[in-house]
Amino acid sequence: MIWLNGALVAAEAARIDPADRGLLLGDGLFETLRVAAGVPRHAMRHLARLQAGALLLRLDLPDADVLHDALAAVVTAHRLADGVLRLTVTRGAGPRGVLPVRPQRPTVLVTAALLPPPAAPADVIIARGITRDENSPLSRIKSLNYLPSILARIEAEERGATEALLLNQAGLVAESSAATVFVHRAGAWLTPRLDDGALPGIRRAVLLEAGLVREAALPVAWLLEAEALCLGNALSLRPVRSIDGQAIGGAEIFAGFAATNRTLGFD
Amino acid sequence: MIWLNGALVAAEAARIDPADRGLLLGDGLFETLRVAAGVPRHAMRHLARLQAGALLLRLDLPDADVLHDALAAVVTAHRLADGVLRLTVTRGAGPRGVLPVRPQRPTVLVTAALLPPPAAPADVIIARGITRDENSPLSRIKSLNYLPSILARIEAEERGATEALLLNQAGLVAESSAATVFVHRAGAWLTPRLDDGALPGIRRAVLLEAGLVREAALPVAWLLEAEALCLGNALSLRPVRSIDGQAIGGAEIFAGFAATNRTLGFD
Repeated sequence: MIWLNGALVAAEAARIDPADRGLLLGDGLFETLRVAAGVPRHAMRHLARLQAGALLLRLDLPDADVLHDALAAVVTAHRLADGVLRLTVTRGAGPRGVLPVRPQRPTVLVTAALLPPPAAPADVIIARGITRDENSPLSRIKSLNYLPSILARIEAEERGATEALLLNQAGLVAESSAATVFVHRAGAWLTPRLDDGALPGIRRAVLLEAGLVREAALPVAWLLEAEALCLGNALSLRPVRSIDGQAIGGAEIFAGFAATNRTLGFD
Repeated sequence: MIWLNGALVAAEAARIDPADRGLLLGDGLFETLRVAAGVPRHAMRHLARLQAGALLLRLDLPDADVLHDALAAVVTAHRLADGVLRLTVTRGAGPRGVLPVRPQRPTVLVTAALLPPPAAPADVIIARGITRDENSPLSRIKSLNYLPSILARIEAEERGATEALLLNQAGLVAESSAATVFVHRAGAWLTPRLDDGALPGIRRAVLLEAGLVREAALPVAWLLEAEALCLGNALSLRPVRSIDGQAIGGAEIFAGFAATNRTLGFD
């Protein structure tokens, strides 16, 4: 069962209109939420980020109440104690052309998934074929334009690795293909700045507010010298075992960080 | 009637799977073709560009024959003498996650539309809110990640204009939101280089091969000094009447260019 535009429907029967601008132009946004004990964690933060994205795209988002109810309906339908929700909002169907027209009738889609198995330590490469454009306002929202991340992940696989980091136009570390980068250096956890192309991740925000992480401009050399290195998003915190073939240590430092993350509601 | 994955179906009945990666991640490509006298113009060039995009994305595109037949089927179903076809190919449905898995079952969608009315001369702005990333290989393919163009067009509308030009990271002219830029200067037609972020447009390629246009690095100042300025894609060649509020002349120069374009199969 999935939620589509106001109702629960069987996934096999759910129909996206071939004229949906989400499909035709990547014109939309999404959020991935961790569900624990039947409750979507940090839901208000996820919805706030969605709203910030909608503001940039001039996308007429349904009320937060409507979105919240949609999330709850899918949790209930699946009796989902532990798992994952994906909330996708597109600008909906529209006439041909790049410019969106009003009234907009956004498509709201919520799907559930089982929790992925705990991620093994990652062998990471630094993507050569694609960078992140920190000058674009799109780098600060979670939009459906995910090809840069897809290209980076494909490159990782082709180079025998499991994950890819993207540098920005200035050569600084920005993001991994689907998670925030955390680097331990000189006794402190650092993470890339939004101005350097980091997505404003939910885990990232909570850790920054708690004073457990500091923003920094991250040169590649700092990755190679890292005391510990990991990748975190709403679903997991994953240690990095190697980068471009060079081993990264810090198992104990990572274990301490993971424990602190759990106290803040993040696996 | 539209073509969807091997068959003609009524648009109202056609169903895109909510798990389609085109919808969820913008993971796909498209082409817009002009149909004249019942024949999709420059079809082999459009399909070759699609193949180049699929190669970059590692997208397992159906054979060109299959795509060609799909285009022909939609033309026949609509008895389309003059009009527009849009061919969209996504990576199809897949499991959760950024990395595509094989076997891929791409979604192939072909829709028809009437020819848009002749475009009036455009009042153009230079987008301030978004640039084109000429360093990304995605700038050279026609992918579903269209938010940069959408943001530029929204900005144009909000600033009272009808079209937007995107500069690249170096501040040179790259593209309009959905067309190639052509500038007349010192007696010659110039167009941005692919390395500066121009999409390899079909009209652009034919004009370059015919020796009617030259590639050049285009500073913004050259737009303001242009003897004539226009925007061209597979569907239309549109004169620019003003740029950032400054009038652009050259009606006769444009008329001559448009006539030459018609001899090469472009309206």
